[in-house]
Amino acid sequence: MFRHDSRLQFAAKPDKPDPLYARKLQELIGGAYGEMTVTMQYLFQGWNCRMPGKYKDLIMDVATEEIGHVEMIATMVARLLEGAPATATSKAAAADPVVGSVIGGMDVQQAIVAGGGPLPSDSNGYPWNGRYIVASGNLLADFRANVSAEAHGRVQTARLYQMTDDAGVRDMLKFNLARDTLHQNLWIQAIAELQADGLEGTVAPNALLDEEHAEHATSVWHLSDGEHGQEGGWASGPQPDGRHEFGYLTDTEPLGDVASAPPPDPALYATYDGSQGEPRGPALGTEAGLAGKLKDKLT
Amino acid sequence: MFRHDSRLQFAAKPDKPDPLYARKLQELIGGAYGEMTVTMQYLFQGWNCRMPGKYKDLIMDVATEEIGHVEMIATMVARLLEGAPATATSKAAAADPVVGSVIGGMDVQQAIVAGGGPLPSDSNGYPWNGRYIVASGNLLADFRANVSAEAHGRVQTARLYQMTDDAGVRDMLKFNLARDTLHQNLWIQAIAELQADGLEGTVAPNALLDEEHAEHATSVWHLSDGEHGQEGGWASGPQPDGRHEFGYLTDTEPLGDVASAPPPDPALYATYDGSQGEPRGPALGTEAGLAGKLKDKLT
Amino acid sequence: MFRHDSRLQFAAKPDKPDPLYARKLQELIGGAYGEMTVTMQYLFQGWNCRMPGKYKDLIMDVATEEIGHVEMIATMVARLLEGAPATATSKAAAADPVVGSVIGGMDVQQAIVAGGGPLPSDSNGYPWNGRYIVASGNLLADFRANVSAEAHGRVQTARLYQMTDDAGVRDMLKFNLARDTLHQNLWIQAIAELQADGLEGTVAPNALLDEEHAEHATSVWHLSDGEHGQEGGWASGPQPDGRHEFGYLTDTEPLGDVASAPPPDPALYATYDGSQGEPRGPALGTEAGLAGKLKDKLT
Amino acid sequence: MFRHDSRLQFAAKPDKPDPLYARKLQELIGGAYGEMTVTMQYLFQGWNCRMPGKYKDLIMDVATEEIGHVEMIATMVARLLEGAPATATSKAAAADPVVGSVIGGMDVQQAIVAGGGPLPSDSNGYPWNGRYIVASGNLLADFRANVSAEAHGRVQTARLYQMTDDAGVRDMLKFNLARDTLHQNLWIQAIAELQADGLEGTVAPNALLDEEHAEHATSVWHLSDGEHGQEGGWASGPQPDGRHEFGYLTDTEPLGDVASAPPPDPALYATYDGSQGEPRGPALGTEAGLAGKLKDKLT
Amino acid sequence: MFRHDSRLQFAAKPDKPDPLYARKLQELIGGAYGEMTVTMQYLFQGWNCRMPGKYKDLIMDVATEEIGHVEMIATMVARLLEGAPATATSKAAAADPVVGSVIGGMDVQQAIVAGGGPLPSDSNGYPWNGRYIVASGNLLADFRANVSAEAHGRVQTARLYQMTDDAGVRDMLKFNLARDTLHQNLWIQAIAELQADGLEGTVAPNALLDEEHAEHATSVWHLSDGEHGQEGGWASGPQPDGRHEFGYLTDTEPLGDVASAPPPDPALYATYDGSQGEPRGPALGTEAGLAGKLKDKLT
Amino acid sequence: MFRHDSRLQFAAKPDKPDPLYARKLQELIGGAYGEMTVTMQYLFQGWNCRMPGKYKDLIMDVATEEIGHVEMIATMVARLLEGAPATATSKAAAADPVVGSVIGGMDVQQAIVAGGGPLPSDSNGYPWNGRYIVASGNLLADFRANVSAEAHGRVQTARLYQMTDDAGVRDMLKFNLARDTLHQNLWIQAIAELQADGLEGTVAPNALLDEEHAEHATSVWHLSDGEHGQEGGWASGPQPDGRHEFGYLTDTEPLGDVASAPPPDPALYATYDGSQGEPRGPALGTEAGLAGKLKDKLT
Repeated sequence: MFRHDSRLQFAAKPDKPDPLYARKLQELIGGAYGEMTVTMQYLFQGWNCRMPGKYKDLIMDVATEEIGHVEMIATMVARLLEGAPATATSKAAAADPVVGSVIGGMDVQQAIVAGGGPLPSDSNGYPWNGRYIVASGNLLADFRANVSAEAHGRVQTARLYQMTDDAGVRDMLKFNLARDTLHQNLWIQAIAELQADGLEGTVAPNALLDEEHAEHATSVWHLSDGEHGQEGGWASGPQPDGRHEFGYLTDTEPLGDVASAPPPDPALYATYDGSQGEPRGPALGTEAGLAGKLKDKLT
Repeated sequence: MFRHDSRLQFAAKPDKPDPLYARKLQELIGGAYGEMTVTMQYLFQGWNCRMPGKYKDLIMDVATEEIGHVEMIATMVARLLEGAPATATSKAAAADPVVGSVIGGMDVQQAIVAGGGPLPSDSNGYPWNGRYIVASGNLLADFRANVSAEAHGRVQTARLYQMTDDAGVRDMLKFNLARDTLHQNLWIQAIAELQADGLEGTVAPNALLDEEHAEHATSVWHLSDGEHGQEGGWASGPQPDGRHEFGYLTDTEPLGDVASAPPPDPALYATYDGSQGEPRGPALGTEAGLAGKLKDKLT
Repeated sequence: MFRHDSRLQFAAKPDKPDPLYARKLQELIGGAYGEMTVTMQYLFQGWNCRMPGKYKDLIMDVATEEIGHVEMIATMVARLLEGAPATATSKAAAADPVVGSVIGGMDVQQAIVAGGGPLPSDSNGYPWNGRYIVASGNLLADFRANVSAEAHGRVQTARLYQMTDDAGVRDMLKFNLARDTLHQNLWIQAIAELQADGLEGTVAPNALLDEEHAEHATSVWHLSDGEHGQEGGWASGPQPDGRHEFGYLTDTEPLGDVASAPPPDPALYATYDGSQGEPRGPALGTEAGLAGKLKDKLT
Repeated sequence: MFRHDSRLQFAAKPDKPDPLYARKLQELIGGAYGEMTVTMQYLFQGWNCRMPGKYKDLIMDVATEEIGHVEMIATMVARLLEGAPATATSKAAAADPVVGSVIGGMDVQQAIVAGGGPLPSDSNGYPWNGRYIVASGNLLADFRANVSAEAHGRVQTARLYQMTDDAGVRDMLKFNLARDTLHQNLWIQAIAELQADGLEGTVAPNALLDEEHAEHATSVWHLSDGEHGQEGGWASGPQPDGRHEFGYLTDTEPLGDVASAPPPDPALYATYDGSQGEPRGPALGTEAGLAGKLKDKLT
Repeated sequence: MFRHDSRLQFAAKPDKPDPLYARKLQELIGGAYGEMTVTMQYLFQGWNCRMPGKYKDLIMDVATEEIGHVEMIATMVARLLEGAPATATSKAAAADPVVGSVIGGMDVQQAIVAGGGPLPSDSNGYPWNGRYIVASGNLLADFRANVSAEAHGRVQTARLYQMTDDAGVRDMLKFNLARDTLHQNLWIQAIAELQADGLEGTVAPNALLDEEHAEHATSVWHLSDGEHGQEGGWASGPQPDGRHEFGYLTDTEPLGDVASAPPPDPALYATYDGSQGEPRGPALGTEAGLAGKLKDKLT
Repeated sequence: MFRHDSRLQFAAKPDKPDPLYARKLQELIGGAYGEMTVTMQYLFQGWNCRMPGKYKDLIMDVATEEIGHVEMIATMVARLLEGAPATATSKAAAADPVVGSVIGGMDVQQAIVAGGGPLPSDSNGYPWNGRYIVASGNLLADFRANVSAEAHGRVQTARLYQMTDDAGVRDMLKFNLARDTLHQNLWIQAIAELQADGLEGTVAPNALLDEEHAEHATSVWHLSDGEHGQEGGWASGPQPDGRHEFGYLTDTEPLGDVASAPPPDPALYATYDGSQGEPRGPALGTEAGLAGKLKDKLT
């Protein structure tokens, strides 16, 4: 269960309204790496965590903080939109190039749909969606997604920092940048700890390493003609997992058969000349098990 | 420019068709962490890479391989659908529980739309889309997204490996698992190398570390009531970036003002009692610069 | 800023796992009228509310509760998936009709993507997205959206209540049903209060009622041939707003001109026979204002 | 079956073309509350209505009108785009600030994709989609969605009315505003009539009111710290349904257990320390019924 | 403006309800080539048509018919869902394999969301969206899209015809098949007529044929290693447009430079070693034109 | 399997950067008819082709070329963005109308998300998705989709050609225009050859022509009131398939019953007055077949 404190985690006071920037900030609300993403990603990871204890509690601490980040930036967007020339007519916009260039760059839905407020969308007006997040239950894979999200979040915040000279906006972004720095370090640390605790290894998942075709876990296949790909540390030497050696395969011949599709079901009307014969059917498991016995008995 | 060899990179021959499994495999084609994602993510990263040399060449090597992985799995799906009871009527399906349970679990669009072939969709029939990928130009952030993608790709492949006992399918998946192992190691290595080459640090981007509010780059805020969050290595000690110490803040008081939205534009018809006064306008920059001078001169 | 209590607002303990039902419950998490919708809708409405006081505080009370509802149902879904036959092979599924029918009806991404947990998606696997919510700033329009959301939420919950006989699941749903009852009453009450407080009227927005073509605010146009449409109270008598009379127009003749598109821009290559002449240009406002004066002076 | 009259329901003639405004009007075509939404929402509600008679006939009357509203606004958009500087080069746009500010604010797909015509998208270029509509079969819930849609539609139309000073455009919008006024009144009336006819009550659905946990249908939970939430009529007194009293619960303690996820399936590779034991399996119903008897007999 | 006749264009009476088939039929309502697509595609093409006369009138005739096709199939879906075991519990479903297999294959949202009715979605539950349609204003390109849509529509209808043995359903599909046959012929004829009328040629658009690099309008590039590509009529001989000869280029060498991205903007934090120097800026057109003169005068 | 040559198929060198145009070009990367669409459409068609030989080999030749077209245009976009004023503040933008009008028209995500590079999105920022493509296995229907895609691709390219005067950009577009010309001719030729080879006819699919209601495969229904629809060649005379005559039906009376929905399932809470009685159930096939016999034996 959640509780809400009306105060923002950190100040979100622009010196002056700036409707152009209000559009750009939408990326940090509803973009693929915006605050809605880390909020929902961490919440679902926390709820899906299978071990009571430090990992689950950490995830929920950070998840709960992120809801407040959506709130901070949403508030900032509303304040940046104060007094925006949202209802200036096109004629007025075109008549005054100053107004005109502002109108052109605004997010029109912030006015038409939200009445001068924030949207759950990114800076191109595309709505946030649930496919942006992952909570696989495998904490190594999930924490890597978290490091990635915080890294992209900080890269985008840094870019946005450069797009304004408003001291109030920058003050808030300096807080966000710092949290993104911490959170990158934090998830890196948590990955190290998962490994130290013996819960996960270098490769996710820590399984099927003996079943997989180990001979194909070694070499980069040289399939583009750039000459420098083999100059990296990934072309030779031990791999980070300590189990494999890196290689660089320049003689890249396909190992499989010619790609082909099987004979089609005539009732599906694929174009077909009959050259591959009739399709065989799937194995539905009737040879054994309950249904098989049934068929034997009854028919 | 690209060229195509008709042979598959690795064999994709199921022992027998299996239409239920053909639906599940769609996740590896068009899911958020499927082969279309790594294909497009690496291609756009390669095209967007600002430095000729080993990183760009590596990215293009791997990107080109991944197109072939879409091809392998798409071919496998078509073969798994050979002879599927796609046009069995509901009556027949219901009359025979063996057929019925198969019909219920199939992807109906594989039959109706693709005529018994693969779709650019995931295992729930949702189409692949471009928001799944990232190519930010910041290679540290991008390679972290790559480690994450390969980790989730291998987790999903491992799960799918457990969902079949078809030796032919498993043979292909053993190849995929191995490539996902290699690729996790590879991007981890490439991150290490970016740092060794002095191009990036621990935190992405390697910038604004002096401008951000450093005092807020230290402590996890304890905002959920789990007691174990402070037992991890993220609650004290040096952070991985070597610049900060970890802390764990249990006395979490908001630092900002009460969240509020500014007075609305009357022409946008937000409900309002006038209590906050009239909105101020944005700073459009007319005080200085070209347009400002213009206004002064002409009006 | 938000805080989290690890305990659920209400118990979410199924008597037994039930993977088929776990899929259906997804509708209440990530459907158009699921808990993610009311969470985000109320949060954005609260942040966008222009008046400090009882309305804003109420919205934030309810918004904060709804985050906890996502948590309850997400937890229920994970528990319903305990021990699901997610990795049963198709062969096993088909061999045993009991297992087979379960496999067919499960959400395969709950296993492949979430490792046996909930997804931010609806019962057809479609992800939640930000276009589901509205926070227009006009509280009458917004509260009507809230009444609608709670009504549809309760209708769907009632349907789901009938789809299970698990006492534990039903216990939680009885709580959700009750909250949806309260919340319908609550938003109806809030609408009445908006009107009593003189902030809004019957029609949203409470504006332009004198400017609009009042003669067209009266009659239903009879455009379908059903004979009973005029038997309702909407065909005559006073309208709820107290300003208009209802009418029912059976002689429905179009009032406008023939629909037509103007002459096309030749550079856009629309098929055109020249019959409509050349296109005229838009009025860009150059006749007056800053830019117009500029043009006059400089050219 | 439908028939078409080439004349528009109402005039859609702008005084002059205005390409900036043509983008904004897209919201009324393909936005969440645009004319495509009410068209499809009412059509599906009409087709899904289970009672021949006045409700179904009314829905079909209004649905049929709405198709014509898409037509009116689509025609208006095409006319507003007449002669737009769609193929002006960037150089020309930048050289003339009047043209430049217009170019910046136009919907580029109206030119590139539609050749100077309307799109089935909203004002941010996002396509209309079917999740915008609802036709649940429960007319109380559906009519509430309709009141909400007409309210938001009129709010947006009123905002757009303020964004133009073109008398021809305003003339059409005055018609739309009036229809939105009527339609709000109409659906409010239809809700009253559903209740008067004894078909529905105050709460949707009119069912399970005795089964739900009635003690939780009373109080707003005070979960945010705003002090004014209890000053509204929703904090005490009778509820609109006449069955419940309102309350305001300030002592908000969770009623449920600690949120937790069950032991995971090892074959799905969630990170797990074994602390919660092994997962139990679902109840597949084999104890009784046909399949249970089968298993007993055959195995 | 539109009018509605309550009778269906053709009978839509299934012999018996069939909930499995009701899901599959969704493809013809809300799929990429379903009736909502042709409805909206033809309506927008008609509204966007720049020439009064036979083409526009034809398009509107067919568009209006298609609305009625959505109605027919939506009605059929509702009737197929009559009495579906939508609220059967999982336990009941699993206990009876007959019920179980039906439950597994149903569209759960048809019950939970639509109360046993049709959805504006396809057979995988994905909503119809506006990007499915095109109305470019170029009638040659548009009519080709129409031929394609009718062809895919008939292919899918034919597949669905094979998936049922219900005489009532088949009776309706026989009508749909016939209309799809007619409509394919019709749009082929309309294309021929566009060309006969001198409005369009073979290539869309009928323009820039002298400006384009004609030497590259001749040969298929042999970029895959299949040996049979040159056996087709596309490898030599005259092209259908009568302006070009076909060729087949086996010596395929790239004509362009090495793909590379330019030096990045430092404020965007792309990883960069400085090897490509500093970025040059865009040409904003200030050299000439209004703004250029302005800059000269004022600065 | 694929291989990559670092050189572009054709030069992609703009004379000067142009950030406004960089946004517009996104349509050719990630639009519904952009290069990602033809790439994926042809790849899936090739993989799904059921006949080894000239058709499959042709498809793979062209598919492989198209990957290189994505590369060309993505490279062009990055080069057009060189030195773009992406981080100019709003103040600077507004102060200088030249900069301002550029800022307003740029794709902000190209800067914030891609660091000055291309996106897998269209010119309105909407991501490419898998529902844009079709690979039905029926080559006639698929090749018609290809002709349509190439026609719309060329129309859009021609429009974009008119929107720039940069000689370098135009040089690339002249290549693209030429390829689109060839590819239209090519797929038209391939359709002719499918028919000459006896694999397909005029109508797709070449089946059920005797089963469909042939009397309804003849006449356009006159449902709109335009008077000129019957002046075309589609109103009389032989149809292109040589099997039917065209007609034009002006006396258009519905052939079906009144549209109605059946009695609802009470557990789904549709509003209902009982007037249609109780719903009948579906035919689940238990009368015959395995499950029917089972029920007989066991119950």
